[in-house]
Amino acid sequence: MDNKATWIWYPGDFEVWLGNKFNNRRTERGAMFPPFWKQDSHYVTVEFSTAVSLDKAETITIAAEGDFNFMLDGKLQFGMPGRFTVPAGDHRLNFKVHNQSVPPALYVKGRTIKSGNTWLATYEDKIWIDENGVAHGSGIYVPAASWTFDNIDTPPSSYSLERTEMQPVGEEQTGKNKWLFDFGIETFGYVRLKGVTGMGILNIYYGESREEALDMDRCETLDRLDLRANRFAEEEVEIVLDDSKAFRYVMVEAKGMITFSDVAMDYEYSAFSHKKSGSFRCDDRRLNKIWQVAAYTMDLTTREFFVDGIKRDRWTWSGDAIQSYLMNYYLRFDTDCVRRTIRQLRGKDPVTAHVNTIMDYTFYWFKSVLDFYQYTGDIRFVREIYPRMQTLMQYVIGRLNPEGMAEGKEDDWIFVDWVDFPMHKRGTLCFEQILLCKAFQTMHTCAEVLRDNPLQNPPQGSITTAEYAKDADRYGKLAADLKAKLKPTFWDDSRSAFMHAIEDGRMNRDITAFPNMFAIIYDMVDDDDKRRIMDSVMLNSDIEPITTPYMRFYELEAMCRMGYQERVLPEILGYWGGMIGEGATSFWEKYNPADEGAEHLAMYGRPYGKSLCHAWGASPIYLIGRYFLGVSPTKPGYAEYEVRPVLGGLKRMQGSVPTPFGEVRVKMDATSVSVKSDGGKGVLVLGDRKYDIPVGKELRIDRF
Amino acid sequence: MDNKATWIWYPGDFEVWLGNKFNNRRTERGAMFPPFWKQDSHYVTVEFSTAVSLDKAETITIAAEGDFNFMLDGKLQFGMPGRFTVPAGDHRLNFKVHNQSVPPALYVKGRTIKSGNTWLATYEDKIWIDENGVAHGSGIYVPAASWTFDNIDTPPSSYSLERTEMQPVGEEQTGKNKWLFDFGIETFGYVRLKGVTGMGILNIYYGESREEALDMDRCETLDRLDLRANRFAEEEVEIVLDDSKAFRYVMVEAKGMITFSDVAMDYEYSAFSHKKSGSFRCDDRRLNKIWQVAAYTMDLTTREFFVDGIKRDRWTWSGDAIQSYLMNYYLRFDTDCVRRTIRQLRGKDPVTAHVNTIMDYTFYWFKSVLDFYQYTGDIRFVREIYPRMQTLMQYVIGRLNPEGMAEGKEDDWIFVDWVDFPMHKRGTLCFEQILLCKAFQTMHTCAEVLRDNPLQNPPQGSITTAEYAKDADRYGKLAADLKAKLKPTFWDDSRSAFMHAIEDGRMNRDITAFPNMFAIIYDMVDDDDKRRIMDSVMLNSDIEPITTPYMRFYELEAMCRMGYQERVLPEILGYWGGMIGEGATSFWEKYNPADEGAEHLAMYGRPYGKSLCHAWGASPIYLIGRYFLGVSPTKPGYAEYEVRPVLGGLKRMQGSVPTPFGEVRVKMDATSVSVKSDGGKGVLVLGDRKYDIPVGKELRIDRF
Repeated sequence: MDNKATWIWYPGDFEVWLGNKFNNRRTERGAMFPPFWKQDSHYVTVEFSTAVSLDKAETITIAAEGDFNFMLDGKLQFGMPGRFTVPAGDHRLNFKVHNQSVPPALYVKGRTIKSGNTWLATYEDKIWIDENGVAHGSGIYVPAASWTFDNIDTPPSSYSLERTEMQPVGEEQTGKNKWLFDFGIETFGYVRLKGVTGMGILNIYYGESREEALDMDRCETLDRLDLRANRFAEEEVEIVLDDSKAFRYVMVEAKGMITFSDVAMDYEYSAFSHKKSGSFRCDDRRLNKIWQVAAYTMDLTTREFFVDGIKRDRWTWSGDAIQSYLMNYYLRFDTDCVRRTIRQLRGKDPVTAHVNTIMDYTFYWFKSVLDFYQYTGDIRFVREIYPRMQTLMQYVIGRLNPEGMAEGKEDDWIFVDWVDFPMHKRGTLCFEQILLCKAFQTMHTCAEVLRDNPLQNPPQGSITTAEYAKDADRYGKLAADLKAKLKPTFWDDSRSAFMHAIEDGRMNRDITAFPNMFAIIYDMVDDDDKRRIMDSVMLNSDIEPITTPYMRFYELEAMCRMGYQERVLPEILGYWGGMIGEGATSFWEKYNPADEGAEHLAMYGRPYGKSLCHAWGASPIYLIGRYFLGVSPTKPGYAEYEVRPVLGGLKRMQGSVPTPFGEVRVKMDATSVSVKSDGGKGVLVLGDRKYDIPVGKELRIDRF
Repeated sequence: MDNKATWIWYPGDFEVWLGNKFNNRRTERGAMFPPFWKQDSHYVTVEFSTAVSLDKAETITIAAEGDFNFMLDGKLQFGMPGRFTVPAGDHRLNFKVHNQSVPPALYVKGRTIKSGNTWLATYEDKIWIDENGVAHGSGIYVPAASWTFDNIDTPPSSYSLERTEMQPVGEEQTGKNKWLFDFGIETFGYVRLKGVTGMGILNIYYGESREEALDMDRCETLDRLDLRANRFAEEEVEIVLDDSKAFRYVMVEAKGMITFSDVAMDYEYSAFSHKKSGSFRCDDRRLNKIWQVAAYTMDLTTREFFVDGIKRDRWTWSGDAIQSYLMNYYLRFDTDCVRRTIRQLRGKDPVTAHVNTIMDYTFYWFKSVLDFYQYTGDIRFVREIYPRMQTLMQYVIGRLNPEGMAEGKEDDWIFVDWVDFPMHKRGTLCFEQILLCKAFQTMHTCAEVLRDNPLQNPPQGSITTAEYAKDADRYGKLAADLKAKLKPTFWDDSRSAFMHAIEDGRMNRDITAFPNMFAIIYDMVDDDDKRRIMDSVMLNSDIEPITTPYMRFYELEAMCRMGYQERVLPEILGYWGGMIGEGATSFWEKYNPADEGAEHLAMYGRPYGKSLCHAWGASPIYLIGRYFLGVSPTKPGYAEYEVRPVLGGLKRMQGSVPTPFGEVRVKMDATSVSVKSDGGKGVLVLGDRKYDIPVGKELRIDRF
């Protein structure tokens, strides 16, 4: 049992509430811009309970976010007591907290009685009275959620990221009443205006590029500070804007009799909880720089949740997030942020749309739970999220076509990728079936894990082991059946590739990289077919090239899986190095090496529509950690793991990968490899040879 | 189109939010006491839209409860404009409002542009982008909700009932520092303490009876006003308590150096919107008094919602509410309160429990929609609520047994009635199948109505006429099939009665009034069987008598339906007259004529557990209006109606029944009947003779 009292709430409710705040912060040229899918709410009344056995009487301190009641052994106590003395003996404590605005939360602290995640929570403590007038309780109870809110004065609703003041590195006057400030690199936070005096309007124009900040009529974000009725007109004040923005450049325009002395910004960031971070260094300075810029891109997009782009988008997106999670496992191992984002993206029942309204994004959401379990081994989280996996999967299954395959209905967005070439998106896409199959496999694995790891004392209303077993069988069969249908349905053996789609009963025989690379990554075909796909698709220059870093992630991953690191390395140096060559200080949403100048800034038909700090641009973090340093868990939570280092054309490299135990450090050159690990049962794999990795002691292999 | 601009919100959200406030106001001896079922939330982000066609430019005033954005013809406008000029021409206006604490609401007022229920609302303005990069919207849109919030300064969250100050009729000192105040009748509101001065504690004990107010340790409700740090210690202040209570007596105890001069109370009540109220007067003064006390009981329990008991319960309960609705149709015709209560009881998806956790209450909820449609003809409401009828019915059907019958699962409360005799409640109760059959019939009728009354321009995402037709067929068949099974399954022809239940595969051959009287009221058997049931059950003194006014409602209704008004009248005079004889100023939750003194106050094993103002006690309002004055709609909304007056032992009577058109007035004695009506196509039925009732002109029949 945890030794600290901590704030508790209903699992997922903190994220649902925080997600609403987060997603509603997006703006477009000064207008708020909420998501176009359902936003859920926390349960407004939650009951928390625990059983205690006391040697002697004990006084507890009680705090709640919301109105509450307190029942001792079934008897309601007067009012909302801040302190209460629980007598010696066995007792049952029930608290019911109501709050419409923020998630109902509870904090109870005594000598031995401490609120924490051993307590139970329910949103419905159903009672029914039998024919003899006896009341029975029959709600569904779950372990209460908690995090790091261990102080009575810092309830969950007080959560905010860290801030630190930063100064611009350059300043120039760009007009009669206009000044441009350059913070040197892409950044995120709150503009701080110093020495403001007088009355008037201060217009603030943000730019990820200099061009954008100067273009008052077309920049994506702006603020207006109306101080025409400034009661501080006679004195100098310092003003920090309420809303955060992403930018490198800020142009301030002063209208009216108003001046300011300086501009700074409060950089806002997430303080990572894991003690070890990933690192990388090699003999190629360009790759080292790419790794550093990718790491900074990740740090900027790792916030309350993993966000795609920090300037414009500012909503959580499942397809983007699953890549952030994977990168994060190789950078900060901030598993809290992964949990938060998975919960937030799922939201609540009823399911009325695919995650982010996108069918592929629903499937990625499932896969992200599988990845999370593999990297962290966190069964508790799998158990918490499983009921919402079930209901989302019910929604998916309810929309399958008669062949049991997923196709877009009228109101589904089929994303796949932003492509310039025509791509059929309606009908039955091979790509979507592969993702669906992985979603079924995820359900199967999670159900198996929960079947095989029953709780000692499952709370009332818990899913039973028999139900998990039934799900495991059902989804195992669904996954196997769908996998077995993939080749008969979509494979063109003469071309050694999966074809694109069936639409209106006819096969679209186009071949794209998308289904084929996922067939490799998600193991939908055997090794022989994977090799055939490599030649016929992945290394075939007749296939339309991928242009987004989003799908380059998977393309390069597929190549690495097949041992093509030596072809991947120049791709990374060229593509990501190309962005750096264009002055990138964080990686972009999209990059076309053929573009020139301000063309790089445009997207969606808008001159500054492109996000210049986009999580999916940071994939080298993942590719390097996973396929060059070569570290990956083979059993959940790194209980067992492999190190398969590959220089891939580098002369030497060294780096570390965070794990639940701390980290794994890898150093390699042409003739030697050394590995040092803080825990887990590791195996170093060098060609056909395998070496056990000891814990806490360097393993060094020379002349392998 | 409505001429006034009015506040609009997402249908049902106002009631969900208000219901949470309402239900959480229940207290038990100073502790809050929220319901033990899921409390839902409003949608936190709602999009409102309309299309306009302007001859000339027009400036609109915009107000919102929450943060909002505004899009003109798809283009977001800066900030949150309070005024905006819409140019001449055709335009599309979209507003998106976000509010976590209260339902997002919008008010827009221009010369011709006025927010109202012709606008559309959605909680999910889904967008998907096709393979050509074109965005498509595909959310589900519904007409926005509105009510009487026509002023920019009175948004929905400002809603509260009316208050007026009342004085006690008696006062006595009952102890050293204790004074008892008698308000003369049962009342509801906020205690007002006048001339308070000094520092100390004022304890306030409430009683529906004198005994309860004096019993500090056991009274059901109390308040404590802690003025030990009273900053007004030197002056006299007037304090109105924050929380409302139900009481006739209030005892105030002053502890410490504190005094007060007077006690009053702010009576809180709902101002009824319908211009005509029901009335009744006859030659029997006892019955006149019963009608008056019943009317007052109804007025006390008609609040934000129809509530069962005003002292202890203070939650909305479906089984109680359906009776309140029926009484209300004969008293205030406050259809707004019916709509509010139906919406609130249904709440939101997902359905996780029966309404109030009680299976019968779910079935009554359906029936209440059918009744509402019959009395009001409000198709718009049926259309609004239908999707939530569908999902609740899915829940019901998902829990039927293999024979397609409803039986209580582990976490269902099977209520039927509070009975003193043993009654099987598990298994397949005949009573529950009759209610289920009526629920199926309700679905059938509502689907038919919506099938036959399509909207001219249904909003995107609306249920199609074909879908309504499919539902109508499906539920028509389910209802017919279940009705056809009732007699083969439960009927004992030798005893001319429905037996009670099947439990564990065996018939419980007990005969109770419950299924048999509902078979009459809900027309589950033919007239011949109804007459047999009358003799074998309803008039059979060997059958266990009903002791709650709750089920007496249906018992007496069944008798009236079968023409037994002459037997019902003495029952009313005896039972309800008995309560008045015991000093009742409002009618009770339960009444046993054999009880004496304080026994009348006890229930649930608590000395003052019984509610002395309980909506279901007011049924004479309904019985008299429906079966003595004899007024009832035969087509929805009184488009057609009948008047079948029955003196039932009275010498003469006169009264009125409110209708959507105004009212129907009926006057009758042994030799003449006169009827006057404000609208609808009425028929006066006297024995075998029928007379058309003209509108606005008295119809008088002598010597019939």
